[in-house]
Amino acid sequence: MMDQIAPFAPPSYADITAAGERLAPLAVRTPLLESAVLNDLVGGRILLKAETLQRTGSFKFRGAYNFVSQLDETQRRRGVVAYSSGNHAQGVAAAAALVGAPATIVMPSDAPAIKLDNTRALGASVVTFDRFGDSREEIAAHLAAETGATLVPPYDHPWTIAGQGTVGLEIVAQAAEIGTSPNMVLTCCGGGGLTSGIATVFAHRAPSTEIYTVEPQGFDDTARSLAGGEIVSNQADAHSICDALLAPMPGELTFAINSQLVTSGLAVSDDDVRRAVIFAWQTLKLVVEPGGAVALAAVLSGAMACQDRTVAVVLSGANVDPELFSDILRNGAAG
Amino acid sequence: MMDQIAPFAPPSYADITAAGERLAPLAVRTPLLESAVLNDLVGGRILLKAETLQRTGSFKFRGAYNFVSQLDETQRRRGVVAYSSGNHAQGVAAAAALVGAPATIVMPSDAPAIKLDNTRALGASVVTFDRFGDSREEIAAHLAAETGATLVPPYDHPWTIAGQGTVGLEIVAQAAEIGTSPNMVLTCCGGGGLTSGIATVFAHRAPSTEIYTVEPQGFDDTARSLAGGEIVSNQADAHSICDALLAPMPGELTFAINSQLVTSGLAVSDDDVRRAVIFAWQTLKLVVEPGGAVALAAVLSGAMACQDRTVAVVLSGANVDPELFSDILRNGAAG
Repeated sequence: MMDQIAPFAPPSYADITAAGERLAPLAVRTPLLESAVLNDLVGGRILLKAETLQRTGSFKFRGAYNFVSQLDETQRRRGVVAYSSGNHAQGVAAAAALVGAPATIVMPSDAPAIKLDNTRALGASVVTFDRFGDSREEIAAHLAAETGATLVPPYDHPWTIAGQGTVGLEIVAQAAEIGTSPNMVLTCCGGGGLTSGIATVFAHRAPSTEIYTVEPQGFDDTARSLAGGEIVSNQADAHSICDALLAPMPGELTFAINSQLVTSGLAVSDDDVRRAVIFAWQTLKLVVEPGGAVALAAVLSGAMACQDRTVAVVLSGANVDPELFSDILRNGAAG
Repeated sequence: MMDQIAPFAPPSYADITAAGERLAPLAVRTPLLESAVLNDLVGGRILLKAETLQRTGSFKFRGAYNFVSQLDETQRRRGVVAYSSGNHAQGVAAAAALVGAPATIVMPSDAPAIKLDNTRALGASVVTFDRFGDSREEIAAHLAAETGATLVPPYDHPWTIAGQGTVGLEIVAQAAEIGTSPNMVLTCCGGGGLTSGIATVFAHRAPSTEIYTVEPQGFDDTARSLAGGEIVSNQADAHSICDALLAPMPGELTFAINSQLVTSGLAVSDDDVRRAVIFAWQTLKLVVEPGGAVALAAVLSGAMACQDRTVAVVLSGANVDPELFSDILRNGAAG
């Protein structure tokens, strides 16, 4: 449990359904897909929530639009600022364009080119920083103070969390449409916004469903924080191909929620992730970026046993450079 | 118009709805997807029918299962034979396995390795032949005569056509679910089974919808046959990266239907197709094989103007070798 008081109250289930109404005209109700080959392979029923097919290629549009659309006219005119490795960047850029707000995004200089390019193509100004030197939070805060722009938090804010939670609303509804309800939900975890939103929905709608986070090895800060009951950080020198999941530690608000609602956290290796990216391409016919494939990797690697279980697996994003992707396809996993 | 009498009667709309009921428990109701980026790009509304996500990675499972499931116990025991460049092969192999019939598939020796491998993995025996020398029809007929097995026609049979037509049933239903109906349907065309099935559905349900075939340049036999009113063949030495669409001429039954119901035929270049495969990967986040991307290529290349129109585009298959796919991603289109 945390000693600190989170700066905001957690979003309620009603906040998430309100986000769902805001998003309905603009977000994709991404399909919940099933593969006979995958089901046979694991001996269970895997329901794949393909947020890869979401506007901007990841779930991040949901939280960004739910946040930006609640700003008033003056705030919109002053614009928005965000820091992001790339998926939140594109989500904020697209959301800001839809409400007519100028957007400035602080991105690591080593972000995938596709994420930098797409963010600019959506009309945002991009400011790059050195991921191993500068503080992106400080740069973004400075930009916000200078221009009066509003910072759009990537995860640690109830509006962001409520937007991401709409993924959970759809999983519940789409599973019901095919006559089932998942025993477990596996989702990737960076700062914890997607997890905390989904967990809030299931706590309200299907409280017996177990929620698990999946992180890259070396970035399993949430798993270790959950296990120890307090926020811990990752080693500063850790590396992973999952560029979307390199947050240094859980958010305060997201961890306050996840420590109550998440069963536990899993970690997968980069080679597990490469195999999952290949499986998604070859068998599921879906493009998934490394960070978007960690939950699938947990299923395929056996890190989570799925025998006789119905398991919702979030495929969270698909923005990956063609060089890295074709390298993975050609060379597969080293181990 | 044709002078010959087709060997079978065309399937009726009721035959197609009956196929839909047979397929409902086993086939994927593939999503009808939309991309804000694609819509903005063409100034219209593009509804992508993602048959790439169908069982076995192409629409061919539909026709194969609709055919095989109508065989009686004796026929099933004697087994089935098919000839195919690979997608029908996998469809027949999967369908035969589901009804417990042994399957032998005659495939070109230069078929993509993923198609050969997947067909074997589904439990079928594979017999290869030289696409530029041997007659696959004769080999398959010989095998069928020898063993008493039933030949599963790739397109020129009412049961096959009725199965493929269920794609059309779903497009009509899924478009209605989002409050629309397409002005046009664009679909790939090899032997014409998918086209004739979809066209039959639209003739019954939405007769003002225009149906267009899309073929690779050099394999536009259907376009030229439609234009001239009689069946013509492709040049024997034509080549294309669209291995799924290399049928030498339209089927008799499929052409009898398509000559009544199809507006006209379009052709796209291999470079148009490469660009469409890249666009699908990068922007739609879908894996599409070259032959599965021709309809999308017609939209992106401007071969079909989509301004202010609602256009259903069938993405028909996704079985492509990683070497070819990563080569396309890395090198793009030459032209």
